[in-house]
Amino acid sequence: MSNLTNRQVLLNAHPVGFPVDTDFKMVETPAPAPADGDLLIRTIYLSLDPYMRGRMNQGPSYATGVEIGDVMTAGTVGQVVASKNDNFAEGDFVLCGNGWQEYAVSDGQGVRKLDPTVAPISTAVGVLGMPGMTAYVGLLDVGELKDGDNVVVSAASGAVGAVVGQIAKIKGHRVVGVAGVQKKCDYVTGELGFDACVSHRSETLADDLKAACPDGIDLYFENVGGKVFEAVVPLLNDFARVPVCGRIANYNMTEPPSGPNQVPSLMQRTLVHRLMIRGFIVYDRAHLQDDFLREVGGWIRSGQLKYREDIVEGIDNAVRTFQGLLRGENFGKQLVQVSDDPTRPA
Amino acid sequence: MSNLTNRQVLLNAHPVGFPVDTDFKMVETPAPAPADGDLLIRTIYLSLDPYMRGRMNQGPSYATGVEIGDVMTAGTVGQVVASKNDNFAEGDFVLCGNGWQEYAVSDGQGVRKLDPTVAPISTAVGVLGMPGMTAYVGLLDVGELKDGDNVVVSAASGAVGAVVGQIAKIKGHRVVGVAGVQKKCDYVTGELGFDACVSHRSETLADDLKAACPDGIDLYFENVGGKVFEAVVPLLNDFARVPVCGRIANYNMTEPPSGPNQVPSLMQRTLVHRLMIRGFIVYDRAHLQDDFLREVGGWIRSGQLKYREDIVEGIDNAVRTFQGLLRGENFGKQLVQVSDDPTRPA
Repeated sequence: MSNLTNRQVLLNAHPVGFPVDTDFKMVETPAPAPADGDLLIRTIYLSLDPYMRGRMNQGPSYATGVEIGDVMTAGTVGQVVASKNDNFAEGDFVLCGNGWQEYAVSDGQGVRKLDPTVAPISTAVGVLGMPGMTAYVGLLDVGELKDGDNVVVSAASGAVGAVVGQIAKIKGHRVVGVAGVQKKCDYVTGELGFDACVSHRSETLADDLKAACPDGIDLYFENVGGKVFEAVVPLLNDFARVPVCGRIANYNMTEPPSGPNQVPSLMQRTLVHRLMIRGFIVYDRAHLQDDFLREVGGWIRSGQLKYREDIVEGIDNAVRTFQGLLRGENFGKQLVQVSDDPTRPA
Repeated sequence: MSNLTNRQVLLNAHPVGFPVDTDFKMVETPAPAPADGDLLIRTIYLSLDPYMRGRMNQGPSYATGVEIGDVMTAGTVGQVVASKNDNFAEGDFVLCGNGWQEYAVSDGQGVRKLDPTVAPISTAVGVLGMPGMTAYVGLLDVGELKDGDNVVVSAASGAVGAVVGQIAKIKGHRVVGVAGVQKKCDYVTGELGFDACVSHRSETLADDLKAACPDGIDLYFENVGGKVFEAVVPLLNDFARVPVCGRIANYNMTEPPSGPNQVPSLMQRTLVHRLMIRGFIVYDRAHLQDDFLREVGGWIRSGQLKYREDIVEGIDNAVRTFQGLLRGENFGKQLVQVSDDPTRPA
């Protein structure tokens, strides 16, 4: 074991605005050796998600931030390469949170075994993992989806948005997506079956969205903030609900934007139209995990719910890929493949 | 009947900003005569409430606006002076919505008889009426008051705020009010028993509120908007709830204020702290009326819940009094006494 090298990506500086290369540092250390009760896990897939940008900041957030010199946090799928823990055997595939590195030792706490015959192991950090469950609980529990709701979801081709919209379609709703480039919009309406998709790059976004939502919006699943949110607010119907999942357009701002997008107009509409705006974090709703796996797992097996992965190879590419994710350059759930996946046909 | 004169206050113009005298017009017409099935009601008390400012605007709101030439809308307490309706007798006291006028004819729809031996009839538009029920449903149903919540309420000496805070105190919570002048703050902590009250006129409002809320805020009952809301947002704890009842500080604005009070910071906090912000209108929650009357009525009879009325005499003073209400000059539930109240000791 001792001759294994572990490449790790550390936080080198708290970013000011958009994270630059020097905010990260790649180091090589010897892979740790498992003590009694431990297992050594080789990372296969590293999940990159927008929430990680918040973890890089100083100061309080809903989760402990990454300190300078720490390994960047991430959900990972891996394989046990050595086990001194009776609950795990060499060769087991596992879901864990080992972060941006090739190897890690764990005592098995919070490590979940994956069965590659049930679903591809990469889905454990995607459609059947945190992003999928975020979509599920945000739409149904936080957003209180009701019969007849006109649904709009931003980042519609992304790991969360694609599941939100497809669940709403399965449940019989009219669904409009907001995405970036044309090929993503085409995917959203073609492959995923949304009723319409508008591009946030359009000069006429507000008008495009209004035209795509002739009956207004009853549920807006908020992933992006910024100008998309501004275009949505005037279209929110009485009793509309806004589950707030993410605000990616604002994550790299160093000061509040100026412009007409101000609290009073939002709050005025909140009052007059009895809006409900509710922030949420998927981990607050862990009691819904079984429902999620049963229901969404079933839809995936039946082919009703589709997913797309955007897999980049090599931990060397993690920083560049994360930067691309924050710019919306990914197309589907962003993964970094750190080492071979023996379950995936070559 | 036909020689009765009916003084009425009509909307003369949609206000631009703060309502000025010429936005209203007082006219005298002959009091209408009741047809078969009708009753003629003399207005005793006219309720003035901040929501009326919204009704004076052009364009859609949650209720039909007042058109130019219409009598200003208001909840009223009156006495039947002539009845051709079997359900009402001359002399009956009634709750109705006859607006800013001395007399009105009704077919009895939506008119509720009042028993002056149960509670003073004026309370039917106050603590046992719409403002009281707004407090009750906003705090308990919309705001989902939970054990241990630290509660803050703005317009704390007002018709709604005073009931919000007292219910929260009865239920064992720590309650901080925000009010204007010192005598109101003294009333809120003295008579009403809140734990603290800060003045929104203080130069150091944000610091004062922070000092008064050492454990942050779990439930903020929003009546005022503006700088009070700005001071509240940074203090909202995880899972805080903000029932949005009113935004009086913003009602007379002709354009959105500039400054640091912007959507992104509010929405960022909503996300990180999983806030729930929900607008509501009391009429959406009519199913809670019986609970409200039973529970709040009981607290009033037991002396646990106090109320204060600010009664101005004469319909001639309605406009000036409404303008004062919008400036926060009232102290307690604002009523205009339009004619004699035979149930009130001289």
